[in-house]
Amino acid sequence: MNTIAIVGYGYWGPKLVRNFIQSSAFARVAVCEENAERLARALRENPGVTGCSSFAEVLADDRISAVALATPVDTHHPLAKAALAAGKHVLVEKPLATTYAAAGELVELAAARHRVLMVDHTYVYHPAVQRIRELVRAGELGRLHYIDSTRINLGLFQHDVNVLWDLAVHDLSIINALVDERPVRVQAIGARHTSSPLENIGILTLRYASGLFAHINCSWVSPVKIRHMLIGGDRRMIVYDDLDANEPVKIYDSGVVARTDEERSRLLFEYRIGDVRSPRIPPREALANLVADFVAAIRDGTTPRSDGRFGADTVKILEAAQRSVKAGGSEVSLEWK
Amino acid sequence: MNTIAIVGYGYWGPKLVRNFIQSSAFARVAVCEENAERLARALRENPGVTGCSSFAEVLADDRISAVALATPVDTHHPLAKAALAAGKHVLVEKPLATTYAAAGELVELAAARHRVLMVDHTYVYHPAVQRIRELVRAGELGRLHYIDSTRINLGLFQHDVNVLWDLAVHDLSIINALVDERPVRVQAIGARHTSSPLENIGILTLRYASGLFAHINCSWVSPVKIRHMLIGGDRRMIVYDDLDANEPVKIYDSGVVARTDEERSRLLFEYRIGDVRSPRIPPREALANLVADFVAAIRDGTTPRSDGRFGADTVKILEAAQRSVKAGGSEVSLEWK
Amino acid sequence: MNTIAIVGYGYWGPKLVRNFIQSSAFARVAVCEENAERLARALRENPGVTGCSSFAEVLADDRISAVALATPVDTHHPLAKAALAAGKHVLVEKPLATTYAAAGELVELAAARHRVLMVDHTYVYHPAVQRIRELVRAGELGRLHYIDSTRINLGLFQHDVNVLWDLAVHDLSIINALVDERPVRVQAIGARHTSSPLENIGILTLRYASGLFAHINCSWVSPVKIRHMLIGGDRRMIVYDDLDANEPVKIYDSGVVARTDEERSRLLFEYRIGDVRSPRIPPREALANLVADFVAAIRDGTTPRSDGRFGADTVKILEAAQRSVKAGGSEVSLEWK
Amino acid sequence: MNTIAIVGYGYWGPKLVRNFIQSSAFARVAVCEENAERLARALRENPGVTGCSSFAEVLADDRISAVALATPVDTHHPLAKAALAAGKHVLVEKPLATTYAAAGELVELAAARHRVLMVDHTYVYHPAVQRIRELVRAGELGRLHYIDSTRINLGLFQHDVNVLWDLAVHDLSIINALVDERPVRVQAIGARHTSSPLENIGILTLRYASGLFAHINCSWVSPVKIRHMLIGGDRRMIVYDDLDANEPVKIYDSGVVARTDEERSRLLFEYRIGDVRSPRIPPREALANLVADFVAAIRDGTTPRSDGRFGADTVKILEAAQRSVKAGGSEVSLEWK
Repeated sequence: MNTIAIVGYGYWGPKLVRNFIQSSAFARVAVCEENAERLARALRENPGVTGCSSFAEVLADDRISAVALATPVDTHHPLAKAALAAGKHVLVEKPLATTYAAAGELVELAAARHRVLMVDHTYVYHPAVQRIRELVRAGELGRLHYIDSTRINLGLFQHDVNVLWDLAVHDLSIINALVDERPVRVQAIGARHTSSPLENIGILTLRYASGLFAHINCSWVSPVKIRHMLIGGDRRMIVYDDLDANEPVKIYDSGVVARTDEERSRLLFEYRIGDVRSPRIPPREALANLVADFVAAIRDGTTPRSDGRFGADTVKILEAAQRSVKAGGSEVSLEWK
Repeated sequence: MNTIAIVGYGYWGPKLVRNFIQSSAFARVAVCEENAERLARALRENPGVTGCSSFAEVLADDRISAVALATPVDTHHPLAKAALAAGKHVLVEKPLATTYAAAGELVELAAARHRVLMVDHTYVYHPAVQRIRELVRAGELGRLHYIDSTRINLGLFQHDVNVLWDLAVHDLSIINALVDERPVRVQAIGARHTSSPLENIGILTLRYASGLFAHINCSWVSPVKIRHMLIGGDRRMIVYDDLDANEPVKIYDSGVVARTDEERSRLLFEYRIGDVRSPRIPPREALANLVADFVAAIRDGTTPRSDGRFGADTVKILEAAQRSVKAGGSEVSLEWK
Repeated sequence: MNTIAIVGYGYWGPKLVRNFIQSSAFARVAVCEENAERLARALRENPGVTGCSSFAEVLADDRISAVALATPVDTHHPLAKAALAAGKHVLVEKPLATTYAAAGELVELAAARHRVLMVDHTYVYHPAVQRIRELVRAGELGRLHYIDSTRINLGLFQHDVNVLWDLAVHDLSIINALVDERPVRVQAIGARHTSSPLENIGILTLRYASGLFAHINCSWVSPVKIRHMLIGGDRRMIVYDDLDANEPVKIYDSGVVARTDEERSRLLFEYRIGDVRSPRIPPREALANLVADFVAAIRDGTTPRSDGRFGADTVKILEAAQRSVKAGGSEVSLEWK
Repeated sequence: MNTIAIVGYGYWGPKLVRNFIQSSAFARVAVCEENAERLARALRENPGVTGCSSFAEVLADDRISAVALATPVDTHHPLAKAALAAGKHVLVEKPLATTYAAAGELVELAAARHRVLMVDHTYVYHPAVQRIRELVRAGELGRLHYIDSTRINLGLFQHDVNVLWDLAVHDLSIINALVDERPVRVQAIGARHTSSPLENIGILTLRYASGLFAHINCSWVSPVKIRHMLIGGDRRMIVYDDLDANEPVKIYDSGVVARTDEERSRLLFEYRIGDVRSPRIPPREALANLVADFVAAIRDGTTPRSDGRFGADTVKILEAAQRSVKAGGSEVSLEWK
C-alpha cells in the first residue's frame, strides 16, 4: 500500500505515527499538521516521514490511500467526510462524531464508496479486553448479569467534551465489544464543580433487553486513579483492573445459587466462591493491534472490530446519555434497527 | 443504671450483649429471645446474663430501664413503640423503621416521654469515620464537592430488605454524619438477577442544595469485596478504604485550580497534587463508642450522634430512593423542615 | 476421653481453652493457672470449665488424661517431662524446648511411655500451608529450588527469647512441613538496637543436601507488617501472602528455561511466565485443625503432623542458628540420623 | 561544550543518547558502536547524531571532550583508562570496574588528569532516593538502625555478572548515598539453580561501625517483582516501594520506646505508631538528573554525587561480598582510609 497520512500531531498523533512506522504496511508515512512548530517536531522525531501543512494537499495527493484523523472532536465529521469523498480509507480518533446523524452519514458514505471506515477505540484492541471478550463469547461466564466500571482520576480537563465523551466512551466501547447486544434504556447523571460548563463527574446506567445491567462511574476529580471493571455472569465473574500490571484479569469461579429452605418453604440465595485464575495477558500494545486490524481491512476486505458501525453505536449511546444528563437524569430509550 | 435488655440473639444481638457487658454501665444485662435454643446459647456464652423469652416480660419489668432491639426490620417500629410507651430508653438496630412516618412517630414519642431513642448506625461511631468527620467539619477539605462510595461484595442475601436498605444505609448514615445538610433530590436504580424480588445491585445518587453530589454503588453480587469512599473538597480530598487495616484514611493535598489561558482568553482547569497523609486511627471498636454514646445520653442527657432524628432522616432518604427505584430511576424530591 | 487440662492462661491459653471446648472431644476442660486473677478470669469467660492453681494437682488427678502447656518457654521441658512421667498425653506450645537435648529427652520419654507428644506449631495446620504442602508433595512445583520468607512487623518485644525463637520458628515449622528434608548447614545473623540483649532482627539461611536454599528475614522493628513467603520450583512457583485475605496462595506457571545460543554456542537462560491461579482456601481455623490432630493421635494412635520429633527438629535448627548468631554468622553444620 | 560520545548502543546506550540530546549541554552527540546494524539503528533513531565504529576514532577526535561508556562490564576499565588518558571526561555504566584495584586506578588517573570520572548509578539520582537522602541527612529518622532491601523478579539472566553485581549493586549505591559511613564487615550467600555458574539468588548483610545493619535480598528467580526498602531509625522509619507509582515513599512516625516495668524492675520495649506521610515525589527522570550532574561537574567543577570514588566504594563492597560468597558466606572485613 502506498501512503498513510496522519492528520494532527498533538497528543495522539505521535502514537499513531510511531505505530504506522513500526507496522511497515504502508510504504510511506506522512504527517499533516497546520501548526508549523508541531510539524517540525513531527519531522524531527520521525526521520523518513514526510510532512505537509494543509489537509487539501492530503486530499489531492493520489498516493495517499489512507488517512488517520487525530484532530479535535468537532472536526472528525467534516474531515472524514472529505477524505472518504476523495476515496481514502479513514481511521478516526474516538469518538467518531459528535452526533449519531453525523456518524451515520459517514458509515453510509464509506459503504457507498467501498472504503474502510474505522474508529480508534484503542481499548477494544487491548490484549486484556480481547481475552475477556473471548471468555464472554465462549460462554465461560454463563449468562451476563451486570457490568460495573469505575474510571476515575485527577486528570486534565478537556475543553471540548465532558467526562462522558472523554472517559465513559472507553467503557462503552469495551462493553459494546464484549456483547453484541445494545442498550435499550440509558440514564446519566452529571455533576460540575468548577466554572467550566462541562461535567467532570458522570454516572451512567444502561439497561439491556436480556436483563443485562451496566453502570459506569467516571470522574476527572478523584485524588486516586482507578480503572476497575467487574463483569458478572451466573457462572463466573471477572475483575479487570487495568492498573494491575501483573494480573489485570482475574476470573472468579463464584456466583449465586438458589436453594429452598425446607423449614420455612421459601427460596434462599447463597454465594459460593471457588478458585481464582489470572490468565497470562500478552504484552502486545493495543495500538499495534488496531493498526493491524485497519491494515487487514484495507488489504483483505475484512471487517474491523471497531468499524464505523461500531463507532456510530457508541456515539448513539453517548448522545442518549447526554440527553439524559440535560434532562436531569431521566431515562432515555434507544431503538436499534 | 439498672438493667439493659437486648432483644433478639441472632447475628447482631451477641455483639450488643458483649459490648454492654464490657461497658459495665448497667448493673445487669438481660437477653430476651423467643427461640429457646438461642436463648440457651445466650446464657451459656455470657455467664451472669439473665434471660427471658417474652417481650411482654421485658416491658413489665421495672428494673429494665433500657432496651436494645436486634430483631427483624419490620418489628422495629412496634417493639420500639411499646418500649418507649413503657418508659424505656431504646436503642434500635438500623434502619429505625421501614417508613419515615413510622420513624417520625417514634421520634415524637421519645420526645414526649423524655426517653432516649437511638439508632445503631455503627459506622457513624467507627474511629475512621469520626476522624473524617472532624476533618470535614474543621474545614480541612474546603467546600465539599462530591462523595463517591462503593460498597460491594459477594454476600448473603437478605430476605426482608433489598441491597439499599442493607448496604446503602451505611453510606447514608456516614454521609449524614459528615455533613449537616440533607439531600434535596434522590435518584436510585436497582437491578435483580435471581428469582428473588429484591434488588441485589443498587445505584443511588443524591443532590444537595449546596451543590454537593453523592453517588453510592452497592451490590451483593461482586466477586470481590470493596468498601471504598472518596470525599472530594476544593482544598483536599480523602480516600477512606475500610478494608485497609494499616491506612484506612488518606488525605490528599490535591485539587483543581482554574487558570486563565492568556493566549486564547479562556479558562483552563488543571489538577495539582501534593503530599499524602494518613492519620493514625485508634483501634477502638465502633460498637463500644456507640454504647458509650447511648449510656451518656441516658445518664447525662446528651444528644447521641445517631439519635432518633438522625435515624429518621436516613429512613426518609431510603424511602425516597425506594420510590425512585420503583419508578425506574426517576428523580424524587425531598423536603426537610 | 476424660479431661484435658490447659496449663497457663496468658496470651495463648484462652485460645486453647476455647478450641478444646468447641472440639468437645474431651468430656471436661480444666484450667491450671497459678495467678489467682487469671484463674478467675478463665472460669468467668468459660462457664463449665473447672480450675486449679497447682500443677501438682493436675499431675495427681487421674481423670486428666491430657495436658496442654501454654507457659513460658523455659518451663516447657520440666512441665512436659513431669506430665509424660505421670502418664499424660502432652501438647506443648512452640518451641518444644530451649535445647535439642531437652527436646530429644521428651521425645524418648513419650515413646517409652506410649503417650502422645505434640507441639503447637499452629502454622503447620493453617489451611493455606496445608494446601501448599499438598501441592509441593504432589510434585506440582517440580524440584524445589528455594524458599524465601519475610516475617516482619512492629511488634511487642519478647523478654525470654529473641526474634528467631519468636518469629523464625514459624517459618522453620512451615518449611519442615513442606519438605521431609532437613537442612545440613545453617547461618544466622542477628542485630539489636535497644538496650535489650535479645536480637530484634534475624537473617537465617539454610542449605539442604538436595540443593534447596532457604532464607528467612524476621524483624520486630519494621513499620509495616509483612508475612510473605516465596516457594520456587523448576516447574511452578508459589507466593504465600498470609495477610491477603482473598488470595493468600498464588501459583505461578513460571520458571527458568535453558536454551542454547547457537550463534555463540553458549547456554542462555530465559524466564517464562504463564497463568496465575489462586486456589480456594477453606476458612477453617488452624488451631481447630491442630486440636483435631491431637485428639486423633490419642484416640486412634495416628502420628500428628507436628509431633515431638517434628518439634525437636525445629529446636535443633534454632539451636544451630543461635550458635551461628553467637559466632558472628559463621556456618554451622547439622547432622541428622 | 563540544561533543559527547556514547560508546555502545545495546540496552542502556539508547537511554543515554536520548538524555544527552534532551540535555542539549553538548553541541553534538556521537555514537560509537562496532556492530554495524546497531550503529545504523542509532543513526536512524536519533536524527542529527553522528556515528563511528571504532573507539580509537573517539580517542583521536579532539572535538569529543566527554565519553559515556555503555559497554560490557569487563571493558569498563580499559576503555575508561584510555579515555581518561586521552583527556576525556568519562561517565561509566555501573559498576565502575570488576575489581577495586582497577576502580582505584581510574580514580587516581582522573584526579591526575583533572578530568571528571563519574559512574552511572542511576538510582542515586532517582527523585525518591534523593528525597529519602534529604530526610536521612536532616536527621528526620533519628539514628539509623537498619536498612532492609528486597529486589527480586523473574528476570533475564546476565551472562557476565551474577545477581549481586547486577541487582545488589543498586541497593549498595542507594545505601552509600544515604549514609557517608561505609560497612566494616560484609557477609554474602549465593545460590544457583541452573547450569549457569553464576549465582541467581544473593543475600548480603553489611555491618557498620555505628551499629547500622543492612540486609539485601536479591533474586532473578522470583515469580513476582518486588523493589521494597525499609529504612529504620529510632525516630522515624521509611518504606520505599519503587513499584508504587502513587506513594513510593512513606514516612512512619513509629519506633521503639524503652520503659521500665516497675513491678518486675526490668526494661520493657514497646512499639508506638503514629501518622503516615507520603511526600510528593516530582516525576523527573533519574537519568536526566544524572546527566545534569555530569554536565555541572565538567562545566563548574562540582563533585558529582556518584563520582569515581563513590563508584569505587561500591565495587569494593561487591568485591568483598563476592569473596564472602566464594568462602561459603563467611565474614569479610573491610578497611576504609
